[in-house]
Amino acid sequence: MQHKTEPTLAVEELRQLGCQAFQGLGLTQEAAEHVCEVLVLADLFGLTTHGLSRVESYGERLQSGGISASAEPAVETLAPAIARVEGHNAVGPLVGMTALEVGMKIARQFGIGLVLARGSNHFGPISPYSYIAAEQGFASIIGSNATTTIAPSGGSDARLGNSPLGFGVPNPNGNHFMLDMAMSVVARAKIRNALARQETIPDNWATDANGRPTTDPRAALDGFLLPIGGHKGYGLALVVDLLAGLLSNAAYLTHVKSWVDAPDEPQNLGHFFILIDTARLGSTAWLKERMIDFADILHQSPAVDPASPVIVPGEIELKKMRRHLQEGVPVEAATRQLLDQYANRVA
Amino acid sequence: MQHKTEPTLAVEELRQLGCQAFQGLGLTQEAAEHVCEVLVLADLFGLTTHGLSRVESYGERLQSGGISASAEPAVETLAPAIARVEGHNAVGPLVGMTALEVGMKIARQFGIGLVLARGSNHFGPISPYSYIAAEQGFASIIGSNATTTIAPSGGSDARLGNSPLGFGVPNPNGNHFMLDMAMSVVARAKIRNALARQETIPDNWATDANGRPTTDPRAALDGFLLPIGGHKGYGLALVVDLLAGLLSNAAYLTHVKSWVDAPDEPQNLGHFFILIDTARLGSTAWLKERMIDFADILHQSPAVDPASPVIVPGEIELKKMRRHLQEGVPVEAATRQLLDQYANRVA
Repeated sequence: MQHKTEPTLAVEELRQLGCQAFQGLGLTQEAAEHVCEVLVLADLFGLTTHGLSRVESYGERLQSGGISASAEPAVETLAPAIARVEGHNAVGPLVGMTALEVGMKIARQFGIGLVLARGSNHFGPISPYSYIAAEQGFASIIGSNATTTIAPSGGSDARLGNSPLGFGVPNPNGNHFMLDMAMSVVARAKIRNALARQETIPDNWATDANGRPTTDPRAALDGFLLPIGGHKGYGLALVVDLLAGLLSNAAYLTHVKSWVDAPDEPQNLGHFFILIDTARLGSTAWLKERMIDFADILHQSPAVDPASPVIVPGEIELKKMRRHLQEGVPVEAATRQLLDQYANRVA
Repeated sequence: MQHKTEPTLAVEELRQLGCQAFQGLGLTQEAAEHVCEVLVLADLFGLTTHGLSRVESYGERLQSGGISASAEPAVETLAPAIARVEGHNAVGPLVGMTALEVGMKIARQFGIGLVLARGSNHFGPISPYSYIAAEQGFASIIGSNATTTIAPSGGSDARLGNSPLGFGVPNPNGNHFMLDMAMSVVARAKIRNALARQETIPDNWATDANGRPTTDPRAALDGFLLPIGGHKGYGLALVVDLLAGLLSNAAYLTHVKSWVDAPDEPQNLGHFFILIDTARLGSTAWLKERMIDFADILHQSPAVDPASPVIVPGEIELKKMRRHLQEGVPVEAATRQLLDQYANRVA
């Protein structure tokens, strides 16, 4: 198993190293702590590609001016239970954490709160935000738009992003429900792997450059990822962009600047955070009993493959977190090297 | 085209006939009007299977006592911006319309509102609610749980419902975005059609009774519908049940009573309504310009098949509505007969 052979760091060490690295990239200590809260949780959950390894891409853009290291997100009240965060092109997880904290404050007061964010960047995976909210008793619906990589259903060029959408429902015993998904059937990496193994791919993974479904991984990599459920996933991706981009007054669809093609221009990504205070709905005991029963019902479905019992979304991440808290968090050599390099700037 | 050959009724006639029929089934005039507001919109949108044809199944249950004809939903305030509707086993669309109206009132005051409903029944399709909300400037996220027909990913018996989830975003010019989807790749009817034509089905539509993917429509009908995107659709269906069923204090998962197996027992279905007042986010002109631009960007993607240009969710329903408002609404003979029969009770 990979985590046994890779060098690990205790979570506190990793957090400190991450904070120093982002301070080395020009962030204040407070901003760096917010960013690392999200990215270290991602590493704890085993979401390595969305954890502190992002210091590479974030670092590039911070240094080219594509992301502002000194920007401070500003909060504007639009209605008693709606706020908007103007990110001023700050690092995404800093904008995201600002929005999350405002949203929880609103929801604590009114029961539900909506925070829209604009002027932002890639804000990490969603499950860290869902987890932080769930730990404080909030259910959440969170989404972000993204660079365009998907063609509309029936269309033949990239006009929408593979926008992530996440949900959390707290279980007072800590076994929170967390679903964090993008709208494509698979990630591009899976197609690259098929190509490397010289295998064909199912015809519902991607289209070729002309928008036609393909089983050839090479043609698929020149084409577009297909969303789950055809027009359903297409519609869901649009919903996320409408809430996160259009209604937040951020960029949307093809107005989102490409991270790759325009590395020094602000992307103006948008996010949305809906927080619900479950303490308003019933007692902690009531919620715990129902959440445990909910999971039990699912677990008790006889497994098609006895070696793979039914799981509930969030269980894999929380299990990995518990292990990594005990055994340390695996850190890839390249990530470690970059973190050290940036951290040394402030040492 | 089917609508040319089928007898049609002017929308006002249909609404009146529907109202009389539901009064014939024991509802008050006001309750019947609420129910028909939803079901007639469904017929206008061309969602025939979810329109007034439901008078058949609703009528059966109203007469067997499985749904209460005289119940009046009660509204309870849980937080400034959260209300809960106790449906008291009233007809679903009456509970739904009660929740929608309370939700819009809350959102008008606080910007966003959440209404949870319990003690309810099948509440019709979602797009009528999204439409009513959008006409008044509200974006919406709406869902309901349902009788269990889907197995958990990797499981082999029905433990969750094919729960509908819908979204609406208003365009002040009337071309609202409306997405109304269930979590299965296809409806059971499509598998029945394949069987009738003696065709195989794609292996991602359904499993056999043992939870294994199948291309045999007969085995599929003995088995379970598969959700879109595998574990993603499974997770989404759980989210809807968590919000609509678990958090609303309604039944959830296998606690939902089957409409078919227990026709005279209350189902205790739950719904959730999240309403957002877009007037708080920007001017009408701002929203209209962005919504038109959003749709334009999608429409301009070159179509794979020039005969099928790219569409935006909601366009099909709104186009049908405009036609049916002009040409009349097609009504199937069996539905017409039942409507007349129930209506005659109060004539």
